[in-house]
Formats: sequence, C-alpha cells, structure tokens
Amino acid sequence: MPSNYRNFRHSVPWLLLLLEAVFIVAFYFLHPNDQYSMSDISYPAFQDVNHMVIFGFAFFLAFLKRYGFSSAGFNLLIIALGVQCSMLAEGLLPFRNNRNFLERITRAAVSLTAVVISTGAVLGKANPVQLILMTVVEIIAFHVSRWINVTFLSVGGSMSMKHVHLFGAYFGLAASSRFSEPPPRSEKKASTPKSDLLSMLGTLFLWVFWPSFNFVLAEREVNKAIYNTYFALAVSAVAAFVLSVLTTKDAKLRMADIHSAVLAGGITVSFVAERIDYPWIAMILGLLASVTAILGSHCLQKCWNPVLKIHDSSGVHFTFGLPAVLGALAHVVLFIIKNWITEPSLGYSVMYAIGAFCQTISVALITGFITGLILNLKLFKTIPVSKYFDDQFYWEVSF
Amino acid sequence: MPSNYRNFRHSVPWLLLLLEAVFIVAFYFLHPNDQYSMSDISYPAFQDVNHMVIFGFAFFLAFLKRYGFSSAGFNLLIIALGVQCSMLAEGLLPFRNNRNFLERITRAAVSLTAVVISTGAVLGKANPVQLILMTVVEIIAFHVSRWINVTFLSVGGSMSMKHVHLFGAYFGLAASSRFSEPPPRSEKKASTPKSDLLSMLGTLFLWVFWPSFNFVLAEREVNKAIYNTYFALAVSAVAAFVLSVLTTKDAKLRMADIHSAVLAGGITVSFVAERIDYPWIAMILGLLASVTAILGSHCLQKCWNPVLKIHDSSGVHFTFGLPAVLGALAHVVLFIIKNWITEPSLGYSVMYAIGAFCQTISVALITGFITGLILNLKLFKTIPVSKYFDDQFYWEVSF
Amino acid sequence: MPSNYRNFRHSVPWLLLLLEAVFIVAFYFLHPNDQYSMSDISYPAFQDVNHMVIFGFAFFLAFLKRYGFSSAGFNLLIIALGVQCSMLAEGLLPFRNNRNFLERITRAAVSLTAVVISTGAVLGKANPVQLILMTVVEIIAFHVSRWINVTFLSVGGSMSMKHVHLFGAYFGLAASSRFSEPPPRSEKKASTPKSDLLSMLGTLFLWVFWPSFNFVLAEREVNKAIYNTYFALAVSAVAAFVLSVLTTKDAKLRMADIHSAVLAGGITVSFVAERIDYPWIAMILGLLASVTAILGSHCLQKCWNPVLKIHDSSGVHFTFGLPAVLGALAHVVLFIIKNWITEPSLGYSVMYAIGAFCQTISVALITGFITGLILNLKLFKTIPVSKYFDDQFYWEVSF
Repeated sequence: MPSNYRNFRHSVPWLLLLLEAVFIVAFYFLHPNDQYSMSDISYPAFQDVNHMVIFGFAFFLAFLKRYGFSSAGFNLLIIALGVQCSMLAEGLLPFRNNRNFLERITRAAVSLTAVVISTGAVLGKANPVQLILMTVVEIIAFHVSRWINVTFLSVGGSMSMKHVHLFGAYFGLAASSRFSEPPPRSEKKASTPKSDLLSMLGTLFLWVFWPSFNFVLAEREVNKAIYNTYFALAVSAVAAFVLSVLTTKDAKLRMADIHSAVLAGGITVSFVAERIDYPWIAMILGLLASVTAILGSHCLQKCWNPVLKIHDSSGVHFTFGLPAVLGALAHVVLFIIKNWITEPSLGYSVMYAIGAFCQTISVALITGFITGLILNLKLFKTIPVSKYFDDQFYWEVSF
Repeated sequence: MPSNYRNFRHSVPWLLLLLEAVFIVAFYFLHPNDQYSMSDISYPAFQDVNHMVIFGFAFFLAFLKRYGFSSAGFNLLIIALGVQCSMLAEGLLPFRNNRNFLERITRAAVSLTAVVISTGAVLGKANPVQLILMTVVEIIAFHVSRWINVTFLSVGGSMSMKHVHLFGAYFGLAASSRFSEPPPRSEKKASTPKSDLLSMLGTLFLWVFWPSFNFVLAEREVNKAIYNTYFALAVSAVAAFVLSVLTTKDAKLRMADIHSAVLAGGITVSFVAERIDYPWIAMILGLLASVTAILGSHCLQKCWNPVLKIHDSSGVHFTFGLPAVLGALAHVVLFIIKNWITEPSLGYSVMYAIGAFCQTISVALITGFITGLILNLKLFKTIPVSKYFDDQFYWEVSF
Repeated sequence: MPSNYRNFRHSVPWLLLLLEAVFIVAFYFLHPNDQYSMSDISYPAFQDVNHMVIFGFAFFLAFLKRYGFSSAGFNLLIIALGVQCSMLAEGLLPFRNNRNFLERITRAAVSLTAVVISTGAVLGKANPVQLILMTVVEIIAFHVSRWINVTFLSVGGSMSMKHVHLFGAYFGLAASSRFSEPPPRSEKKASTPKSDLLSMLGTLFLWVFWPSFNFVLAEREVNKAIYNTYFALAVSAVAAFVLSVLTTKDAKLRMADIHSAVLAGGITVSFVAERIDYPWIAMILGLLASVTAILGSHCLQKCWNPVLKIHDSSGVHFTFGLPAVLGALAHVVLFIIKNWITEPSLGYSVMYAIGAFCQTISVALITGFITGLILNLKLFKTIPVSKYFDDQFYWEVSF
C-alpha cells in the first residue's frame, strides 16, 4: 500500500513536465501584441492582483494545523501553472481581445481565483496530481463557459469574468462531493491560534487588495469600482463582527466567521461595482453579503452538507458561492431598476442575464462533478482518509 | 458577575448595527463628486495607505502573547467603521473640499491612524463597546480640531491632517489614564519571540509604507515628501539600533525599542516632508526622532507613567507622541529659518503655528480624558483587570 | 572571554554613529536634482522594490529556528545604512546620471540586494560589526566594479546593475570561506515548520515583486521586462516542484528546494528580460534556471563546499550565484543569435560582454575574500562557533 502512494508521488514530476512542455510549445505560437502601450495604471493593478492571488490566498488557506506547507506551496504551484494554461485557453477561444499583454496576464491571474476557490473545497483531501489535473480542467471549463456567455447570451467580456467566484465555488463543491469524507473527529482538521492568525494575515491581504481585483474587472468608471468595493468591504467587515457575536453561544467572536464574512461584500459587489452610483447601495449590498455568508455558514454546515455528504474544507460555499449568487441577483435587480422606463426590451435583457447565471452555475456543477468522478478513479490513487490534512504526506517535515 | 459580561457582549452587535444604519442613511445624502478624474497616482497611493493601515497596524499591535486575534481583528473593525465615520464627519464640517472621492477615502484612512494609535494606548484593556465608542468620538473630535485649525488659525487643509499622530497619541494617553491599571506582574502582558516577530512584520510594513503616507499628506512637491521621509526613516532605523544597544544593560538589542524607534523618523518628518530641500536635514530629524523615542521610552516608563498612573500598553507616548511633538517643533524652526528675511509678518505666522499645535494637543487631552471617563462608567461594564490582555474573553479560542 | 564579547557589542553603536555622521556630512554636498519630474510609474516601482528588499528578504532569511530576530532586524539595519552608502558611492563615481532622485533611491535599494545576498552566506555567523563593515565595503566594491564595466567594457548603465546578484553571491561566498565552520550537527542550524513557513512568506513576497525588480533594471520596453520575468518565474516555480520531488528520497517535497528554486527564473531572466521577444524563451530560461539551482544545490552541498571548506548558510551559491551565471551566459547567446548577420563587430561585442562578466566575478571574489580576511581579524572579535545562529547572543529574548 505505501509503495502505491510512493508511486503516485513519482508521477507528479512527469505530469508537470509534460504540461510545461505542452505550454512552452503552445506559447511558441502565441505572439504578444505590443502595439498597445502599457497604461500607467495597468502596472500597479497587475502587481496588486498578482500579490493578492499568490500571497493572500496562500495564507488565507493556511488555517489548518498541519497543512501550512501544502496550503502555501500548492497555491503557488497551481497559480504558476494555471496562469500559463489560462492565457492559452483564452488565446485559443475566439474572444475579441485587443488588450495589451500585461492586462492579459492580469486577467489570467484573476481567472485563477476560480481554481483557488475550488481547491479550498478539497483542501487537505486532494493530492497534487488531482490538484494539477483539476486546475487544467477547471480553467478550460471556465473559459468555455465564458465563451458561451459572450457568444450566445450577449454578456460583455468583462462581465463574463465576474462569474469567476460563482464558477469556482460550485465547481469545487461538486468536485468535493466525490471525495471521501474525513473522519468526523479528526484532530488534524482543526486550527490552532497560530494558524488562525496566519490565516487572518491572508484574509487581511485579500481584503486590502479586493478593490484592485474589482478594478481590473471593471470596464469603465474604474474609480467607481474601487470606492464601491471599498465601502461594501467595510460594511461587510463590520457586519461580520455583528453576526459572529449573534450566532455563537456565549456571544463570543469566532475567527472562522470573520475569515469568511469580511470578504463577502467584495464578492457580491464585484458584479455591479462600476454600475452603482451611490456608495450607500454598495454598503447595503455589503451588509446583505455578510448576512448571507454567516447565516449560510450555519445552515449549510448543519442541514445541507450532511444530507448531500459534501465536506467543504474551507467553507467555499458560504464564503464565495452564496455571496456571488447574491451579487448576480443584485446585478439583475439593479439593471431592472435603472432601465425600468428607458429600455424597451428589458425582459429580454433580464432573461439573458439570468440565463448567463444559470449557464455558469450548471457548467460549473456538471464539469465539477465529472472532474470529481474522474479524479477519484483508482488510476489517480487518492490518498487514504487517515492521511488527509497532513503535510507530512507530501513534504519532508522536521519537527 | 459573568452574566454581566455576557450581557455586555450581547450589546456589541446592536451598537454596531445602530451605527451602520446611521452611516448608511447619512451616506444617502453624501454624493460622490466624480467630475474630477482619477489621477494615475491616487490609485497606488490609496492602496498603499489602505494596506498600511489595515495590515501594518494589525500586526504592529499583535505583540502581546495572548491578544493576537483581538489586535488584528479589532483593528479591522475600527478601521472599517471609522473610515465611514470619518468621511461623514469631514463631509458635514464646512471644509473646502474639491478632491475626488478616492482621495477622500484615502484621507479618511489616514485620519484613522489617530484612532489606531489611541487604541494602542488602551490595548488589551478596552472592550469592543469601548473601542467602538472611542472610535466615533475621536474621529469627530479630530475633525473638529482640524476645522478649528483651518478656520481660526489659518492652517492649510493638508497641514491640519499632519496633526494626526499628535492627536491620536495624546487622546489615547488621556483616555488610558482613566482605565484601571493591570496587575504589575501579569504574565499575559508579556510578548513571546513568536509574537515579537509578528509585530516586527507589522513594523516593517509600516516602515515600507510610511513614504506613501507622507506622500498623501503632501500638498505639493510630492516627490520631496517621499524621499525626505525615506531618508528620515533610514537614519531612524540605524539610530534605533544604536540607542537600543546603548540603553540596555549587557549591550543587547531590545525588540520593543526597534519597534518603536524605527518609525519615529517618519512621524517627525511628516510635518515638514515636502518643505525640506536637502535630504541631510531629513536625516538629522530622523536621528533626533529616534533619540527622542528611545530616551523618552526609558524616562516615561520609569518616571512619568508611575506618577501619573498611566498605563500605556504599546507605548504610544514615545512611539508616536514625542516624535510628533518634535516634528511640530521642527516645522516652526524650519519655517523661521526659511522666512527669516522675506516674511514681514513672521511673528504672527509662528504664533499661529504654535497656536495650532497647542490647540490640537489640548483638544486631544481634554476630549480624551472625557472619553476615558465616560467609557469607564458602569454602563459600559469595563472588563475585570484579571481578564486584561486575553483573547479568550472575546473569542472562541481552541488550544 | 564573555567580557570580550560584551566589549564587541559596545562598539556597535559607535561604529554606526560614526558612519551616520559621515553620511550626513556627505549628503550635505549631494544635491537632489529635481528638475526631472517624477514619472507616474516611478513611485509604484519605488514602493515595490522597497517593499521587496526590506520585507521580502527579512523573512526569506528568517528560516533558522533561533535566528528570526537577527534575520529580520539586521536586514533592516543593513538596508537602511546601505542605501545611504550606495547613493553616496554612486554619486562620487563619475557615472552619467540624469535620473530623478526617487529613481536613484530605487536603484540604491536594488544595489543593496548584493549585500543582502552576501549576508545570506554568512547568516548566523557574522556579528553586527562585521555585517556593517561588509555592507560598506561591498557597496563600494560593487559600484567600482560597475564603473569599470561602464567605462572600460562599454556596458550600459542599467546592464551594469544587472550583475548585482552575481556580485552579491560570489562576494558572499568568498567572504564566508574565511569564517569558521559551524559544528556539523548544530541543532540551531535547523529550521522548524513554523520558521520554514515564515521563510515561505518572504519567498512569496520576493516572487511577487521580482517583476518590479526587473522592471526597474530595464532601460526600455519595460512591459516586456515585466511579462518575461513573470513567465520565467512561473515556469521556475513549477520546475522547482518537479525537481524537488525527483531529487529527494521517498519522492517528498523539500521546503528548502522550493525556497531557492522558485526565484531562480527571475534572476536568470533579469539579464535579458527586456530583450526577449517571445515569452516561450523566458519560460525555457526559467526552466533551466530552476534545474541549475536544484541540481547545483545537491552537487555543491555534497562535493564543492566540503572540499573548499565553505559553509554557505542559506545557499546563496545555488539560489543566486548559479542562476546569475546562467543569465549572463544566456545574455551572450541571445546577443549572438540576434545579431548574427547584422552586426559586423559581433566578436568584439561578445568579448566585451564576457569580459564584463569575468571582471564582475573576479572583483567579487577578490574583494569578498579580502573582506572575509579582514573581518576575521582578532580586532573584530568574531563570535565563538557555539554562539552561531543564536538570537540570544544579540537580543534580549524572553521565552
């Protein structure tokens, strides 16, 4: 049995080498178009998104007691690999793309949040081979879903990117439903105050850089996107403290609630950040997002997950999924309110927006489920449940 | 008795909800003025200040052994709440304000440093209800003090913001004088190497972003503000090492000295950063600032605090207060030197500058003292001294 | 004997004060040239490089179990001191310098990476007096070496800066060969999972900011420099995982390999980042750099270091030295390929490039060796081998 797992580990390098060889050859045919000069703002935005994805998520996911190396390390691996994959996938699909190369890398890093969110759902349960395959499949599925939205449902190119959290959360959930559940009282599944503080470090990074994230996704009026996101996040953070106290016995704060709810506002508002004219609307959305995240966390963990036998390691359903659903809803409602009188074909537009939402979520669930099924074939030698959440299975750890 | 405290904890969410409701309604009447386009530089500056305030201070204050969650968590809460409050307070007072919305948020974040500094003085002693009330009161008091300076003492709008450290430190000190002193040999008051290293992480963040902070406060010649701040910080850091060795027995370095003194130069120079023509002047100010901070730390902790019964948890008096006093002094001296011959009404200008300084410090001390008094009413159910510096009183902590 | 060491500690502040006095006087004669307006991009680039050098390297080097305070603290000291020294050294040498002041500080911070890399080689073995002297000597030697390259070997001003990793690594190696070797089974030399994770934090910072680093070094086509660096780093990170699994027994990942190899691509590509027209070339360079770093790490530690009696604390030879050699080689090869037909005097140009490389490495080795000799004179009272890698020798540490 152990030799089995050793064999699996031996297959990681060859899989990575094969992928890198394919990517390098493919990049040979991908020519950077430099006729567009770098705008002064694209460079700081690139750095912020890069920083957030590489660093913020690495430590956001590092809350498990004995899984810090893997959380931070595999996050880097997935993003380094995925950005190349994402640029190729976007380049192959017939998107109308007249951006400069740096903006394209930035958008590739943004699309990787889908994968990182999905890995959150299977955190500690998937081995590197599974993570690598999931990265490649999910990135391709995400861009295909975007392409369907853009081509058939008249969704704008930037708007289609905003489904990234939605896609990531539901793909991850569907995939994680195919992984064996960890033993209910595994002490490795817990966090320590030290690892929780490290995770807070990651959360604060994500919080700080979320305005840059929505800024990159905005098509026009980028300053609106920044300040609306900031206000949504601020109210979200306050509401997270409110709701954490209200929902715990003994009226204490729970760090896990804070981690998940402070970001909810940023996710919800990403759908509409540049279309909101007044900050108070963004603030109300931030409040609702936080409520959704924390109430969702309690309902899902008690009622939903045990029934569907889903084990969602870092709670991506309520951290990213539900706020994104709320954001998609808010997008439709705001669209109706704004164009109530002026737009003659309002019904059609609303139908298309709802259609795009349903299309994204269906593709995410279906491809996620199939990916989960394939990854749990004997071929990919899933790790034994007793070795879940343990760095020592993958890393040389000296205590 | 315990039920009493549980009751207090139950009041946190309702207080926060009430405030948020007020803020959202007030923001309904606050219209963002977008006719001013975003300058290319305001976006990176916004992100830097945001990063520094949220992230840097969170970990700068996380040096207590058992108070990491509260240091990082309450810092986020205070800033998320305070930025909204600060924008409203600034909007209500009749400031001449033709900045774009993003710059106004950036300045709101800068004004929050006053509150964060004050919370440093009561760190581990104030409960969340007290912190929230203090935030609201202090932000309003700070903007009123600024308004007095601008209206009656002909201080420029940006110059008035530079009193932020001064105000924060003395408000916090006055407020902390009303809190019960912790038992002298409380082992929770100590730091561990791990928590000290985490605090170093925060300090380095503040150090790196301080030039951005002074850049935001500068009215003109922003590049001067950046490089003078940088040189003041550099010399300050070197001097911190010098003085830490000189003032400890056995000639060892003390981490707490480094934490407080490396930033002193940035604070001192903030008053004059864009008016210094030659870096060597900034360097000398940085050196003096560091000397003030470390000698101040030894004098205050031995002579001053025991007499006045002030317990200054994170040493804000010598870390922020004294260097800011030095900066205000340097501002006056440099002004005299520069305008010795040309300015006919030099006396008046100097009187006004000194008047503004005295006004700020008096308002800070008086409002701080009153706030401290009110916060220690039985109504706000102060925490027992035995529960000072302890995360477990507020958070679900699993060991 | 102990009193001896106490004496040494007493000399640190006086050495620092002397240097600061010299620097302040020298800065009196250095006038900032402000006629060049700050470009919008130089401010974010300044902040990124500053962030990376101060923060990234502080934690990159904090992997030793009991040396976290010194790694982070002395890094700040060295950079704060060295930036001043570097600006003066560059100002005194007859470089043609028409940059604005902020860009000059940024370049000074970049040149400090040489010193930081060298300190990595003597990490835990050199005392502060030795580190301070090494900083001053190395910065001067580096700028003299640059000046020789620019003046006699017709190397461009920016190109000459790109030798910074090469110089730092070989200077550090030569100097470290003169320090006594630590006992082979010192348990202080080891890392813990916690310190390794902290070092990962620093590594991720360096990874994220490396494109900014190469951006600052680029003379033209800065966007090319950014995206080529990004792709080289991405492939390097993937290759680091591949090679770490292939070279460890039991096919596990080793954190130390990841730390050193993920950055290799950025170092190698820095020589040619703005000259590479297609990302796939950068990707191949990233792959080769990672291979060089990890294979180098195994060969050097087994064959080379024991023979030459070099103890390279943080493996700067294979982390920075070998990838830089590879980069210099790649620069020559790419130059030949690009100018094969068009350039009539190709031979001369190639000779000059190779000459510059040899000159840099010789000056680094010779000055490093001499510095190492001088630093180990009795005068500077080297620390006893038993006190290597121990914070307690320099800091007040409370456990």
